[in-house]
Amino acid sequence: MNENWQEMKKQAITWLKEAGQMLKEAINLPLQVQTKSHPNDLVTEMDYKVERFLTKNIKSAYPTHRVLGEEEAGAHLSTTEGILWVIDPIDGTTNFVHQKFNFTISLAIVSNNVGQVGIIYNVMNEEWYTAVAGKGAYLNDNRLKQLTETTITEAVIGMNSRWLLKEEHANKKRLHTLVRKARSIRSYGSASLELAYVATGRLDSYLNFQLSPWDYAAGIVILKEVGGRITDFNNRPLPLLEGSSVLASRPRLHEEVLSYL
Amino acid sequence: MNENWQEMKKQAITWLKEAGQMLKEAINLPLQVQTKSHPNDLVTEMDYKVERFLTKNIKSAYPTHRVLGEEEAGAHLSTTEGILWVIDPIDGTTNFVHQKFNFTISLAIVSNNVGQVGIIYNVMNEEWYTAVAGKGAYLNDNRLKQLTETTITEAVIGMNSRWLLKEEHANKKRLHTLVRKARSIRSYGSASLELAYVATGRLDSYLNFQLSPWDYAAGIVILKEVGGRITDFNNRPLPLLEGSSVLASRPRLHEEVLSYL
Repeated sequence: MNENWQEMKKQAITWLKEAGQMLKEAINLPLQVQTKSHPNDLVTEMDYKVERFLTKNIKSAYPTHRVLGEEEAGAHLSTTEGILWVIDPIDGTTNFVHQKFNFTISLAIVSNNVGQVGIIYNVMNEEWYTAVAGKGAYLNDNRLKQLTETTITEAVIGMNSRWLLKEEHANKKRLHTLVRKARSIRSYGSASLELAYVATGRLDSYLNFQLSPWDYAAGIVILKEVGGRITDFNNRPLPLLEGSSVLASRPRLHEEVLSYL
Repeated sequence: MNENWQEMKKQAITWLKEAGQMLKEAINLPLQVQTKSHPNDLVTEMDYKVERFLTKNIKSAYPTHRVLGEEEAGAHLSTTEGILWVIDPIDGTTNFVHQKFNFTISLAIVSNNVGQVGIIYNVMNEEWYTAVAGKGAYLNDNRLKQLTETTITEAVIGMNSRWLLKEEHANKKRLHTLVRKARSIRSYGSASLELAYVATGRLDSYLNFQLSPWDYAAGIVILKEVGGRITDFNNRPLPLLEGSSVLASRPRLHEEVLSYL
């Protein structure tokens, strides 16, 4: 296989631009909002509409490729063989509904389990975080620099406050120590955006106890290009057919934060 | 006294633009960063430089007015009589240093303890949140709508995760219940920006256990114009000569959140 990943990235960007336009037009109209697994897990008709739009275009241009999406596509995939497009039509649906900013469309192209293209598109402010494996990562037209090292006491860490509550997980005490030691905590409500922030150095680390492949597939490709680390809480590579805990960080800081998780 | 507040707002905006330009030029240079009250309370030479620049301009144009600033100006004020300019040269210094976005210059003009002009300037994305008392609030040229009501279960609340840690305050248990009930929590690291987000509806509520007058003086003026509420945790008006707990919210939600604080 000798795919032209740059060409496929360009093609994907034209579809995402069109999808972004659909979201911008819908954002001030009344939306049908439903809840999924729990009351804070929102989905709108636009999540489905954008996923169908992207899936249709991908299948039409690349009939042999497969699609794994948040809402419907590829729900029964059992292997990552061949070429797989992993898409999240709206990452940060609560932000889309409530804030009308800080949501992304996230897309990765994965070949035999190796990420080749990653795109995280912050729709409302037209920030495009993109990468092709081996060709560097970009924010719009600016190539992102290699990430430098830092320590927890100087780190700004992205995480959802909910993980600090008593009931939410086992290692509460160590997590509290991490929060206390860190310079500061931020939370933006879109995992893919927060992974993009790690790639740009806006966050030094981002952690989440439970994410899905479409939340992090694009981030993996982008972070690798800037020397960022992204693993599960046991320092293992992230799976693409099931969900996982996720930690992304600058080098060295990664191991330091892992010791608190 | 028959001041022309609109004219003073225009004048202030020209100074803030110039100050913002100073920050944009400094942001990629090496900064001298010092810590203040604790290791996470940062200050740079740019905080001092911008405060001096604004103070000098205000004093020169309005010799009878007084200035209260975060870093130096008006440290010994004992009354809010007359006309007082309350300024924060960089609100979100950690963001300025680490993230290079999501920091503001915040400015309020207060006459005999009543806020007349409020400006919160998100420097890097050129978002200007402004208001003159009785004349409505604006995001750039767009007049902000009156805030509608909502409930905790549908609310996106801004707060720093640190308040959820055991040691940080007395009412931890009730605060945890609030976080569990809310739709979601966000944290951006700039109090004035988060108050501006409440005014635009991006956040439904924002709370902080300890802020200073320069963090909230401009927010008070802007929130009042859109029907937003802003008080301390005991539902009292916020003081301008000392710090305070702060809750800002949509109407009705305010009382609901207060019951958890």
